[in-house]
Amino acid sequence: MKNSDEEICRRSQCAISAALETVGDKWSLLILRDLMFSGKRTYGELQASDEKIATNILAARLLSLEASSIIRKMPDPDHGRRNLYLLTEKGIDLVAVVVELRQWAEKYAADVSSCPGQLKWNSKNRHEVLTAYKKKLRKEHGVI
Amino acid sequence: MKNSDEEICRRSQCAISAALETVGDKWSLLILRDLMFSGKRTYGELQASDEKIATNILAARLLSLEASSIIRKMPDPDHGRRNLYLLTEKGIDLVAVVVELRQWAEKYAADVSSCPGQLKWNSKNRHEVLTAYKKKLRKEHGVI
Repeated sequence: MKNSDEEICRRSQCAISAALETVGDKWSLLILRDLMFSGKRTYGELQASDEKIATNILAARLLSLEASSIIRKMPDPDHGRRNLYLLTEKGIDLVAVVVELRQWAEKYAADVSSCPGQLKWNSKNRHEVLTAYKKKLRKEHGVI
Repeated sequence: MKNSDEEICRRSQCAISAALETVGDKWSLLILRDLMFSGKRTYGELQASDEKIATNILAARLLSLEASSIIRKMPDPDHGRRNLYLLTEKGIDLVAVVVELRQWAEKYAADVSSCPGQLKWNSKNRHEVLTAYKKKLRKEHGVI
């Protein structure tokens, strides 16, 4: 995970800054939303989302997420020339960030609806709900 | 909170997408980090952070955060020509997102340290720790 290039490029030693260098843009967490909550796995499925991501941006973000070991690409066993994009453990661990962002926007942004990423928890069972969902994702994305 | 311009500009009705349109960039959550965890309040203090944000980007992000009612600007009672930047309730509610991002990067990014934003919690007391910290921020930022 660590290499000297990465260190040289970092803005600072701050973990929050490092996280934003990796997923601090308008698209990366949306792609992860689709992999986490919509069952999407292919380039075509990801491109078909409501936000109409441009194909060059989608391609660049997938490369970047793969380079950061947040997703991995593998050939689709059912379609020789197609790839599947799957979450790694590191990617699955971002589920809390995505759900917290969703809950925040749901509280404050007007007119949001029909959005994937709804994990219902309360102050007592958050840990259990999150753990169970991550377990489900590990199974679906082949993370052992 | 709601206006028709905002709706027209949205990429989709998804709350996660709406959140990323507001804070999905490399700088906004860093500015909030400084307001939440470093006690910074002025333009000069925010500009002095380790990440060396360019003055035009800082100015643009502050305007954007203010337009989204995540922060508010008020004249510094002690220095007539200086402004203070304070979190609103909406901004304070992003503390969970910032801390989750920090915890994720701390787990996976190499060589991160000396970073503000450390709220220590476990699966049992997360809600209490977060509630107490938000209460502290409300007091510090004059949110009634």
